[in-house]
Amino acid sequence: MLKLDFHPAGRHFLQIPGPSPVPDRILRAMSYPTIDHRGPEFGALGLDVLERVKKVFKTQQPVVIYPASGTGAWEAALSNTLSPGDTVLMYETGHFATLWKKMAESLGLKPEFLGLPGIEGWRRGVQPQLIEERLRADTQHAIKAVCVVHNETSTGVTSDIAAVRRAIDAAGHPALFLVDTISGLACADYRHDEWGVDVTVSGSQKGLMLPPGISFNAVSQKAIAASAQAKLPRSFWAWGEIIEMNKTGYWPYTPNTNLLYGLSEALDMILDEGLDNVFARHERLAEACRRAVRAWGLDIQCADPAVCSPVLTGVMMPEGIDADAVRKVIYERFDMSLGTGLGKMKGRMFRIGHLGDCNDLTLMATLAGCEMGLRLAGVPLAASGLPAAMAYLTSEAKAALKAAA
Amino acid sequence: MLKLDFHPAGRHFLQIPGPSPVPDRILRAMSYPTIDHRGPEFGALGLDVLERVKKVFKTQQPVVIYPASGTGAWEAALSNTLSPGDTVLMYETGHFATLWKKMAESLGLKPEFLGLPGIEGWRRGVQPQLIEERLRADTQHAIKAVCVVHNETSTGVTSDIAAVRRAIDAAGHPALFLVDTISGLACADYRHDEWGVDVTVSGSQKGLMLPPGISFNAVSQKAIAASAQAKLPRSFWAWGEIIEMNKTGYWPYTPNTNLLYGLSEALDMILDEGLDNVFARHERLAEACRRAVRAWGLDIQCADPAVCSPVLTGVMMPEGIDADAVRKVIYERFDMSLGTGLGKMKGRMFRIGHLGDCNDLTLMATLAGCEMGLRLAGVPLAASGLPAAMAYLTSEAKAALKAAA
Amino acid sequence: MLKLDFHPAGRHFLQIPGPSPVPDRILRAMSYPTIDHRGPEFGALGLDVLERVKKVFKTQQPVVIYPASGTGAWEAALSNTLSPGDTVLMYETGHFATLWKKMAESLGLKPEFLGLPGIEGWRRGVQPQLIEERLRADTQHAIKAVCVVHNETSTGVTSDIAAVRRAIDAAGHPALFLVDTISGLACADYRHDEWGVDVTVSGSQKGLMLPPGISFNAVSQKAIAASAQAKLPRSFWAWGEIIEMNKTGYWPYTPNTNLLYGLSEALDMILDEGLDNVFARHERLAEACRRAVRAWGLDIQCADPAVCSPVLTGVMMPEGIDADAVRKVIYERFDMSLGTGLGKMKGRMFRIGHLGDCNDLTLMATLAGCEMGLRLAGVPLAASGLPAAMAYLTSEAKAALKAAA
Amino acid sequence: MLKLDFHPAGRHFLQIPGPSPVPDRILRAMSYPTIDHRGPEFGALGLDVLERVKKVFKTQQPVVIYPASGTGAWEAALSNTLSPGDTVLMYETGHFATLWKKMAESLGLKPEFLGLPGIEGWRRGVQPQLIEERLRADTQHAIKAVCVVHNETSTGVTSDIAAVRRAIDAAGHPALFLVDTISGLACADYRHDEWGVDVTVSGSQKGLMLPPGISFNAVSQKAIAASAQAKLPRSFWAWGEIIEMNKTGYWPYTPNTNLLYGLSEALDMILDEGLDNVFARHERLAEACRRAVRAWGLDIQCADPAVCSPVLTGVMMPEGIDADAVRKVIYERFDMSLGTGLGKMKGRMFRIGHLGDCNDLTLMATLAGCEMGLRLAGVPLAASGLPAAMAYLTSEAKAALKAAA
Repeated sequence: MLKLDFHPAGRHFLQIPGPSPVPDRILRAMSYPTIDHRGPEFGALGLDVLERVKKVFKTQQPVVIYPASGTGAWEAALSNTLSPGDTVLMYETGHFATLWKKMAESLGLKPEFLGLPGIEGWRRGVQPQLIEERLRADTQHAIKAVCVVHNETSTGVTSDIAAVRRAIDAAGHPALFLVDTISGLACADYRHDEWGVDVTVSGSQKGLMLPPGISFNAVSQKAIAASAQAKLPRSFWAWGEIIEMNKTGYWPYTPNTNLLYGLSEALDMILDEGLDNVFARHERLAEACRRAVRAWGLDIQCADPAVCSPVLTGVMMPEGIDADAVRKVIYERFDMSLGTGLGKMKGRMFRIGHLGDCNDLTLMATLAGCEMGLRLAGVPLAASGLPAAMAYLTSEAKAALKAAA
Repeated sequence: MLKLDFHPAGRHFLQIPGPSPVPDRILRAMSYPTIDHRGPEFGALGLDVLERVKKVFKTQQPVVIYPASGTGAWEAALSNTLSPGDTVLMYETGHFATLWKKMAESLGLKPEFLGLPGIEGWRRGVQPQLIEERLRADTQHAIKAVCVVHNETSTGVTSDIAAVRRAIDAAGHPALFLVDTISGLACADYRHDEWGVDVTVSGSQKGLMLPPGISFNAVSQKAIAASAQAKLPRSFWAWGEIIEMNKTGYWPYTPNTNLLYGLSEALDMILDEGLDNVFARHERLAEACRRAVRAWGLDIQCADPAVCSPVLTGVMMPEGIDADAVRKVIYERFDMSLGTGLGKMKGRMFRIGHLGDCNDLTLMATLAGCEMGLRLAGVPLAASGLPAAMAYLTSEAKAALKAAA
Repeated sequence: MLKLDFHPAGRHFLQIPGPSPVPDRILRAMSYPTIDHRGPEFGALGLDVLERVKKVFKTQQPVVIYPASGTGAWEAALSNTLSPGDTVLMYETGHFATLWKKMAESLGLKPEFLGLPGIEGWRRGVQPQLIEERLRADTQHAIKAVCVVHNETSTGVTSDIAAVRRAIDAAGHPALFLVDTISGLACADYRHDEWGVDVTVSGSQKGLMLPPGISFNAVSQKAIAASAQAKLPRSFWAWGEIIEMNKTGYWPYTPNTNLLYGLSEALDMILDEGLDNVFARHERLAEACRRAVRAWGLDIQCADPAVCSPVLTGVMMPEGIDADAVRKVIYERFDMSLGTGLGKMKGRMFRIGHLGDCNDLTLMATLAGCEMGLRLAGVPLAASGLPAAMAYLTSEAKAALKAAA
Repeated sequence: MLKLDFHPAGRHFLQIPGPSPVPDRILRAMSYPTIDHRGPEFGALGLDVLERVKKVFKTQQPVVIYPASGTGAWEAALSNTLSPGDTVLMYETGHFATLWKKMAESLGLKPEFLGLPGIEGWRRGVQPQLIEERLRADTQHAIKAVCVVHNETSTGVTSDIAAVRRAIDAAGHPALFLVDTISGLACADYRHDEWGVDVTVSGSQKGLMLPPGISFNAVSQKAIAASAQAKLPRSFWAWGEIIEMNKTGYWPYTPNTNLLYGLSEALDMILDEGLDNVFARHERLAEACRRAVRAWGLDIQCADPAVCSPVLTGVMMPEGIDADAVRKVIYERFDMSLGTGLGKMKGRMFRIGHLGDCNDLTLMATLAGCEMGLRLAGVPLAASGLPAAMAYLTSEAKAALKAAA
């Protein structure tokens, strides 16, 4: 028997880039008793969340909700649109892009992996011209889909999806456009329809502030048409019957009822705050975080200021410092969880999540935990980072007060 | 915005055969904040639930837990063990067996569907001799797997899995043995190892008393060996990496953390009560339910007393009565949800769930709601069913008190 | 360390006449984090509940809410309005009336205790003519207050408060009129203003469906005027500063914030259902309960059909049967809590609560538990009581369906 | 209808000196369904919390738990031990001491109010020699009780209770010793038995981390003996029957069941951490807070370093600054609640609570909110306070790591 009392006095700071802290409101909504998934109340719930979640994807098209975690939605995007042996162009933005490519191989697809060489590729996001060049060269249209990660959770780089769309269009290539915004949705602006994305993949445990367990495919009509021809075997992930039944608010098999309660509450929170305000809040906190890191004299993993993520910030360690040793001391002494370096970045960085249910003061607590932990671990710092972060947040607050006056 | 206040004063009775009522204890456990799925506390939680859940399956082999609802675990069982074009022998016990067969077809398998003809087949459970005959005839061993539903949720028939095992052995056939006990687990006795099952499929929202959202594959070494040869494409469902990482209590991708909290609490409840006591409670309530139905003068869907389900009871309507009209009046007037007739039984029966978090008094409330609703709907009843049910429960209570004295 | 897992599988039936079962909705509302009781959100909450709770008392006058359980509100009613040595006329309806009298003595008042002799007095409720006679005789107006219990929780008798008011008026006596409706409020109709009550005492854990912990004094202008003269020492219970601060939604000392969240939710539930519907539901369940008791051939404690309580029903045991032994077997075997016989009725009766968050099916479960327990305990019953209860509930349902058609 | 969604995205920081933030664990424990307060499970719960809570008071004597908020426990302490017209010696430590004195007057006692003159008296805590002098002068022993506040919530001064005990003893005076540690208990060391306190008054919503609603009187044998003679009228607050029934785990009237669940969980948390560790954590956070205030160049309300409170810190504003305007901007912009200046300190200071469920990072968030708010409000600061606080916390962490190595 486990007692659910994992943490000592005072709030644990869960500052990994997802799962993000689940607000009390959502945990309470999720504890409403499970109802009959074939009864009239459920249908009303289903219609409500299916309609409102579209606003977060900025789409008028169907959004399929799976009772499965985010990795499943990756598989759904591929298996609904592609056939065994199909070539797909994927872009190496970091560790999660690499995992998605590995999945494509497991499913019998032929992924081509574009990207800048070495670690540098992980620090700069998608280079649309590389995609455009490759598609122009594919005169036979062997490439069936372009797959890109919007917000790379392993690095803290948010690629420019609109630019990728323009690159595909410039090449005049008919490939489907599949985008993973598992960690970007409801944190960074995202426009499924405007950007001409064919399948957007997302999950519950990041900007939507839910526990893990449901995931999404926002689809285009082009994707639905492709699914009629796609030959990868599929049943659980198959869009057709789900989209059909969703018209009445139900699902062909048992949905994750309690997470849908949570989704309803999360949509209340996000739409009440306003999507633009949500994005601005994330941008503000991310900028404050970066100013603290720079004041410390440490490098930010994202090397191109234009694509620094509003969701998380990767902090590079000086030579000779094991980032996981720093994380460990912060965890043990200050009860805060940070993200580890993944794949090529193992041991060389840690990741600070500032997403979802966060605000100026939770960020300041987070930065204080990092700074004290860095000092405990013996990392030399140029200066305290907190005054720099506070100066920025204060100036933003002043501007907001002036604007409101 | 939806307000989570679906039901009027007094408790709603959720008496469908799953999702079953989720106990308060489990809802509370599930509202513990989501933690880092890569942190040390999570590993301890993972090891704990992975080990203890084996007791419920009565197995020493790995049990794979998916962050996906039960239908996904069906797909996992097939895609991990079989190759495109493989013949599988499936048995038509009812609607869910039919859906599993449909899934096998979608995945590119060749299911053969055995069973007694017409509705009669849905009323008697698996006939092991039909399986034995078919396997004996398959001298080339074209059949790669035998797939059987243990407890048919659409009918209320619990087939004899040990007898199917004996039939396979008697035929000397090497086919894998795949069993769905989504609605049977933790209600009816089930013995993965003793019965030589290769893959047992189950879900969270029935006997485990959890909301929907996680599902299970208990596997055998033979199944694991088969998975090395199986050629159906798979990634999310692939056992290999999951089983490997589970050794340390972690998962390769994000698990459904909060449902694992719930599973830990559910295991406390089930193992504290004792599996045998859990089974005896279900048997007692099912027998009381059947006595009430007989007193009403109505037919029970399960025509063979040896295989009546301890989980649910199907109640047949007299000619000319629409079972769904009865369900509707019960729902609207008495705030109780019952299961509809599915597939071949549409409109001809309703299903009473008596599973999971239930006891003598919740059953009596359920039977009272049925009886009053039947009368409101104009169904002629031979007599009140409640005295018959109470007489049985009272005699059982007397025997228990005597035994304890 | 205590683990909060007091009950076995299946819902515990808490059928004592209070605390009544707390709905999930209210428990969830109460788990909203405690806020600053001097901040702006609290003021809005305070104003809201202070205003809406008046509807339940049917008053336009102030309702004082104490962060204390119901017994405290008894003391508040006395200490705000009376002076040491004052004579008060109290009426012996049962055990709780007796306790209130005992409290009056402890506080230095001089209670006179009216009532019919022996047990008979506990079975018939207040006899207004006895009060009228006594007041007429008090030509010097030595009696400062008349204190009556509306719904006697120890017996199941609901006295006619309007008739007591008429009796006081007929006697032309200026005494204050103090009424305890701790267990009657929000179950039985109650009209503070119309009935000219000066102080109404109530609590949270009965018809309001909350846990114990807050209590109420609804007051009249006459009572407030009396408090200016009353000389019993008081501070915590003093109305003056509370009523003054309540005008802005705040309290002079720390209120029970989380129970006020629960009160807000309870008021939503009660006012959404409609007070008249709430009362009709209680009347219907009480009548069904009494029909079952009569079918068993047992006596109902309340001997006057005109004043049987809609809140609870007292069931008398035949000679030689210990009611507490019956309660014990019901508790142990059927996991249901019933009320014990109190004071003069100790061992001779048990009490069935049917109040608050209850409906037709929870009542049927309750009656089934009683009937099976009575049989287990060897009490001879004339017949099963459940068919009688169901016949009544079915006829009520038919009438409601016809009215709605 | 109020929706319980008072705060915007990100956690609200409740940093008033009580109610303190209620941990999730406690809110969950409190949402266990209310049980029969006369049933066997309740008795076990009652015995458990009554026994374990003694450890927090460091007493072997009875601790009376009231279903009422803290102000009630003040009244209980006075009304159980004193008679109308009794002289009591009270000490003016601040606003709450003044309120207790006002209560004594309301109850018909004759309080004498000792203390240093003007605001200075509020900045230095109890001066034991003043008490000793006054008691020595009372050769007739007219003074029946000495009443002192341990931790003055309005100022942030923690008086030396052991020294007051020594003063009473030095004067050889038989007066009872009544101490209010409502906001000190389970934050600052407190020793009911060792310090010879006769009645210790406390409440739930501070160091015990519970919502408001229950309160305490820890008593001595001398106090119990006094209560036999005391003539203030009392019933709800009377110790006698409560202490008697508590021996079996029950209460004479309805206890606040759900807050007792919360108390059980709070005791788990406090005793698992260890009382000495709890005290050390509070001391550490308070010292870090004071270093930040000093770095800002602002005055701390407590003028004597020996008695600065580990529970809260009062921050004085420079001339011309309205402390409540600062609080307002912090509340509106940074979603943090601070305590206002009370009584003589109105508008001149704000109070930072650092008590109960708090840790290094929640303190840093709190200090950041104060610092940014002070700047927004135009308060000139000498320097950022956060580096000073972090330097101290880091040095403490280093020392702890060294000690653990």
